[in-house]
Amino acid sequence: MDVDRAEGAPRSDPARVLVVGAGAVGGFYGSLLARQGMRVAVVCRSEAETVARQGFRIHSDALGDWVFQPEQVLQTPSSEPIAPDYLLLTTKVLAGEDRAALIRPALGPRTVIVVLENGIGVEAPLASAFPDHELISALAFVCVSRTGPAEIHHQAYGALTLGCYPHGISPAAERLAAVFRKAGIAVEVTADIVTARWRKAVWNAAFNPASVLGGCVDTARLMANPQTVQLIRRAMAEVCAVAAAAGHPLPPQTVDAMLESTARMPPYRTSMTLDALQGRPLERQAILGAMIEQAQALGVAVPTLETFDALLRLHEPVSSD
Amino acid sequence: MDVDRAEGAPRSDPARVLVVGAGAVGGFYGSLLARQGMRVAVVCRSEAETVARQGFRIHSDALGDWVFQPEQVLQTPSSEPIAPDYLLLTTKVLAGEDRAALIRPALGPRTVIVVLENGIGVEAPLASAFPDHELISALAFVCVSRTGPAEIHHQAYGALTLGCYPHGISPAAERLAAVFRKAGIAVEVTADIVTARWRKAVWNAAFNPASVLGGCVDTARLMANPQTVQLIRRAMAEVCAVAAAAGHPLPPQTVDAMLESTARMPPYRTSMTLDALQGRPLERQAILGAMIEQAQALGVAVPTLETFDALLRLHEPVSSD
Repeated sequence: MDVDRAEGAPRSDPARVLVVGAGAVGGFYGSLLARQGMRVAVVCRSEAETVARQGFRIHSDALGDWVFQPEQVLQTPSSEPIAPDYLLLTTKVLAGEDRAALIRPALGPRTVIVVLENGIGVEAPLASAFPDHELISALAFVCVSRTGPAEIHHQAYGALTLGCYPHGISPAAERLAAVFRKAGIAVEVTADIVTARWRKAVWNAAFNPASVLGGCVDTARLMANPQTVQLIRRAMAEVCAVAAAAGHPLPPQTVDAMLESTARMPPYRTSMTLDALQGRPLERQAILGAMIEQAQALGVAVPTLETFDALLRLHEPVSSD
Repeated sequence: MDVDRAEGAPRSDPARVLVVGAGAVGGFYGSLLARQGMRVAVVCRSEAETVARQGFRIHSDALGDWVFQPEQVLQTPSSEPIAPDYLLLTTKVLAGEDRAALIRPALGPRTVIVVLENGIGVEAPLASAFPDHELISALAFVCVSRTGPAEIHHQAYGALTLGCYPHGISPAAERLAAVFRKAGIAVEVTADIVTARWRKAVWNAAFNPASVLGGCVDTARLMANPQTVQLIRRAMAEVCAVAAAAGHPLPPQTVDAMLESTARMPPYRTSMTLDALQGRPLERQAILGAMIEQAQALGVAVPTLETFDALLRLHEPVSSD
């Protein structure tokens, strides 16, 4: 029972973390915080029993193997018995899911919300629902996947970029960064996380859809075809145009630099490709839909992104939206 | 042995036809000519032995069942022992295949070439290679597929549009049309087959790629999603713009009329979807590539078609072209 710490305890106590959506990303980063002495509980919808019994078995090519036994395993978010200091939100961002309603029962008055998710605009509904809570926005550059029940494989990378939403740096952000760094993770703390999110979206909005629509191919296959590289370049340029119109201009060499670094990467399967291969819902709305809505509002033409979006909808269940 | 007819025999003799590429389309239309008394030989690359032994077994939902036993079954085109009056070319049109070289050995001095294939510009290499031969261009609006070795299922439709290339109507075209009509096929003879081909391309260049890239979905699935209908509409409008720039303007209601008639059709799988599902090469070059080349030469923007093309290339073997 978690009875050794009460609200208002001094800062030197281990911080409490609740990971909401403990899939591969949440389980991996949550486990790193636990290894540094934080008291980490998790919410898993589907495999709570397995995780409670044996913990997460984590195999990291870079950091070794370990077992992460959460302090608590919940099926739904809750602030009982004690509200977390940090709520780490790592759910998939899917159209029609109300993430604010999901986490509301777990928030204490001083809980810092950390959004570690893909996409543009994923913070806004949370900032709007919880204006009195500190909100940290974080981006993971990581190749990590679920390989079995409560089994996680960290293949490569792992760097985080984080900052306060909509801008700034806070002691809570610095503290979280310091813990991740002690765990072996490169962390960049930025006062302009929204621009960083746009920068990541340049890659994601191009490579994720193209990889799925090309038949669930990896980055090496995408980069092997000159016409496909041109397509990726057009999609990236459209994202840059929307970012600039939205007040977050990216450096002019962004697209070239990303294509060069992708060409140097080992073959990589995008998260959307992994979702498609495993029959999971696609993060179309977070990765493309929100951006297209912004483009339309700002009057920016995004024909490539619109084509991606319309084709990806065919990979989803039929809906009337 | 085919010794009862010589070059220069009177027209009342049964005409000789050689079908080159006797898959579903070639086998079906060739069989209709045979049923009307024409002497039909076929070239099959892969199943010549089965066809020679048992003929094509044809099941037509509209016209009944029959067996089509060709007079000859060849593995490669040849004019021995007697050159055909009509060479019916029904091969797939794939990048890098030299169709002129393929049929050259089968042509006699008076052989009429009939191109019954998908795509824009498929006649030009043949017109250029054989300037002294009459060239008829034909379009099939048919749902026909191979269901097993030498087995063909004609599910629906079947109408032909044909005319002389690049324009006009000839006695040979009228004669061929009359034979197909007697076989139960609706035939439109047109003096402007190239415009008719552009009209068909409006549908093909939109629905074929979208159906494959959407995950091999049928037309009903494509029409069920408003965003996808918008995508199809954009692709069709791009084809209309290229057609107009190429000197073949289509009526302004073309796109609306096609979308309406497609919405009324029973769910239909495009030929490119059937090819993709069966692991066959896709007719990307004939259906999209040639059109994009024309668009670029004419300065017409076709961003949707270019995106389709680049994504479809990922469904093909890696090449360096």
